[in-house]
Amino acid sequence: MKVRELQERKSVEVCFSPRLFADILTRGDFVVVLVDILRATTTICTALGNGVEAIIPVASGEEARRLKSEGYLVASEKDGVQPDFADLGNSAFSFTRERVGGKTVVYCTTNGTRALEIAKGASGIAIGAFINISALTGWLAAQQRDVVVLCSGWKNKFCLEDALFAGALTRRLLETGLFRTECDSAAAAQDLWSLAEDDVLGYIEKAAHRHRLRRLGLDDVIPYSFQFDQVNVVPIFDGRLIRDASAA
Amino acid sequence: MKVRELQERKSVEVCFSPRLFADILTRGDFVVVLVDILRATTTICTALGNGVEAIIPVASGEEARRLKSEGYLVASEKDGVQPDFADLGNSAFSFTRERVGGKTVVYCTTNGTRALEIAKGASGIAIGAFINISALTGWLAAQQRDVVVLCSGWKNKFCLEDALFAGALTRRLLETGLFRTECDSAAAAQDLWSLAEDDVLGYIEKAAHRHRLRRLGLDDVIPYSFQFDQVNVVPIFDGRLIRDASAA
Repeated sequence: MKVRELQERKSVEVCFSPRLFADILTRGDFVVVLVDILRATTTICTALGNGVEAIIPVASGEEARRLKSEGYLVASEKDGVQPDFADLGNSAFSFTRERVGGKTVVYCTTNGTRALEIAKGASGIAIGAFINISALTGWLAAQQRDVVVLCSGWKNKFCLEDALFAGALTRRLLETGLFRTECDSAAAAQDLWSLAEDDVLGYIEKAAHRHRLRRLGLDDVIPYSFQFDQVNVVPIFDGRLIRDASAA
Repeated sequence: MKVRELQERKSVEVCFSPRLFADILTRGDFVVVLVDILRATTTICTALGNGVEAIIPVASGEEARRLKSEGYLVASEKDGVQPDFADLGNSAFSFTRERVGGKTVVYCTTNGTRALEIAKGASGIAIGAFINISALTGWLAAQQRDVVVLCSGWKNKFCLEDALFAGALTRRLLETGLFRTECDSAAAAQDLWSLAEDDVLGYIEKAAHRHRLRRLGLDDVIPYSFQFDQVNVVPIFDGRLIRDASAA
């Protein structure tokens, strides 16, 4: 891969909350990487890795219920709890190849799908997680476009786990020699990642959402969520469907 | 000072952008610490330290110009440039005791006074900077109320220098034994501060705003802006005027 002159490189910017995204959206052509490590984007990557044909993200439980009545397989979660009409919750572990392989799944979460709605103004939307970071890095490097890493946060608040991923991805992108950054959030994210990387699960103990999931009994998926490269997919959202980039 | 049981302690929360403040404002009674290290809150602390009687913050250049015509001393800055009608710019160094001692100053900046407007819904607003951190910590400890550290950022974006101060202040507050935190932003800010504290000026080289000020020739005030305890004041905003807590 040819390393470019600094001024020719594409920029990487990190956005710590969907609330901060409108200020970026005015700036033109870029790819958004949507991040919700605990748990939506980790789950979406797992689903596509296990052979899901397509995901239809929806922002409301009402819409999920309506699509269920049309015969779709529905995954849904509201504040960490699976509503009774849903076939699946929001844990990556419920998206097994046996249950979801070859199917189209309607997917509604409290946090992640709302951020997808917000990102719709961008000219391309990819889904990022630790479990697909290498496939994602390669795909982004091939796009030759600026990148904005959009952290879902928790109810629009900054959250550590998404910031750590933003830092890890920024570093990977800079290491390709194809990107540059002048963004304070990207600098901070990389520094937080440098503090955390040797013991991510220890570091993430201080994350509020980690404790929230534990209280809800939903924390079994956490170690998996911080493992690199469990799947070789790059989920792309076309405004209606999420599919693997190789299929989209 | 009596150290309290964890559940009795007041909470510290960090807000990395004015855009994120509305989500916090719904949560009730707390003191906001407004932060704009480069440069508004450093300048305000300097002004009160040099004997300014009161500061009238205004959010628009038009209002600053109108108050100038009423005879006020006016400090103003727009994107780092002092408009021709203003007596002073936004550098702490222009607020000398000779020029401002005993006077009321109208103060307008691009960034800082807008964040003050946003914070108006809070039940108390103090002005924080490295140069008054010990006086501020003591004052906050005496309030016995929850604290939200509101970083002005740069045009609503996360900025490193404000995040570093938020981390330094959070650590000071926790060290009193009177506060607790469960906020991911506060955890991140403290970690960034721990990386920066041994060489803040070196660390801040990566901050975008630091380079912006250098391009504008306004960076002479930076070393001063990161020094602890240059003044012994706690500027308090009552919704109309900023005065030292001992006078307010």
